[in-house]
Amino acid sequence: MTIRFITESKNKLAEMQAILGDVEQLDIDLPEIQEIDAHKIVRAKPEEALKHKKVAFIVEDTSLYLDALNGLPGPLIKWFMKTIGNAGIAKIAEAFANSGAEAKTIIGYADGSGNIEFFEGSIRGSIVSPRGETTFGWDPIFQPEGSDKTFAELSADEKNALSMRRRAAEKLRDYLNLATP
Amino acid sequence: MTIRFITESKNKLAEMQAILGDVEQLDIDLPEIQEIDAHKIVRAKPEEALKHKKVAFIVEDTSLYLDALNGLPGPLIKWFMKTIGNAGIAKIAEAFANSGAEAKTIIGYADGSGNIEFFEGSIRGSIVSPRGETTFGWDPIFQPEGSDKTFAELSADEKNALSMRRRAAEKLRDYLNLATP
Repeated sequence: MTIRFITESKNKLAEMQAILGDVEQLDIDLPEIQEIDAHKIVRAKPEEALKHKKVAFIVEDTSLYLDALNGLPGPLIKWFMKTIGNAGIAKIAEAFANSGAEAKTIIGYADGSGNIEFFEGSIRGSIVSPRGETTFGWDPIFQPEGSDKTFAELSADEKNALSMRRRAAEKLRDYLNLATP
Repeated sequence: MTIRFITESKNKLAEMQAILGDVEQLDIDLPEIQEIDAHKIVRAKPEEALKHKKVAFIVEDTSLYLDALNGLPGPLIKWFMKTIGNAGIAKIAEAFANSGAEAKTIIGYADGSGNIEFFEGSIRGSIVSPRGETTFGWDPIFQPEGSDKTFAELSADEKNALSMRRRAAEKLRDYLNLATP
């Protein structure tokens, strides 16, 4: 069974393939509604996508929630990245003297009949000054709980072993009774 | 000529009526696209609204752009208000030692035939610790250039005399050849 994943991100696609096996990219450009509740965003996308294609597919939202900002940026993370970037976000956490954060992935699985199921994975961590490779979003400023490295300093395997995306994807894998790849 | 204004805000409606005269509220619930470019937001709303009603109407976006955050929150201001509020925004400006800000209104006027015109008004100012009435959004933390009072400390007439919304609305009034009310 091939899972179609609606995403523009090659990095996210690779992570999903590592966990779920047979995943292919489904290229539909969907407008993102302005909303801080990630569940509403993840729900809106399949509803829109189902208008275009009647096939089973998944969408995901991965967001970063700062304790210092009562949950901002959440799904607005991409706008924070475009304007102030990792250094600016780290500066806010430092200014508020509160480095606590949560990284959370919500996967929406649409089975093609209009039914949508949600699978969530999250991990707590700290916002730190940027360290490591700068290739994947806010990985350089997120240091997961129990690690002394940021996501950007970990290998892909090390990151996948504890990432919020893996936790959500594993719940989907169990739901679909897929074998571990 | 009655101008129909798509808004949920009684305060914005009152400001528009003070400048444009015969303005009535048009109650259509429109989803807001997630976008930091206010022009795209203001363009998307009339396009959506025209699917529902073929009448002339206006929509507006009023946003606050912090120099310290390279233009954030912009149209995302409502999420900043819901999470960290005026005190949190003021704290960020203080932490970054940069109080500069711009308040900007963009009015989109759809003439009912599918044509949309845009009218923009803006004013520079400083982000300060909250002062004055807390009834209207971020008015307590925005002190317009040349004033020693925040928007919230000014009377409605004083604020209208220099607000970004007035400047945009006056351009629309000129475009429509309306008399001053």
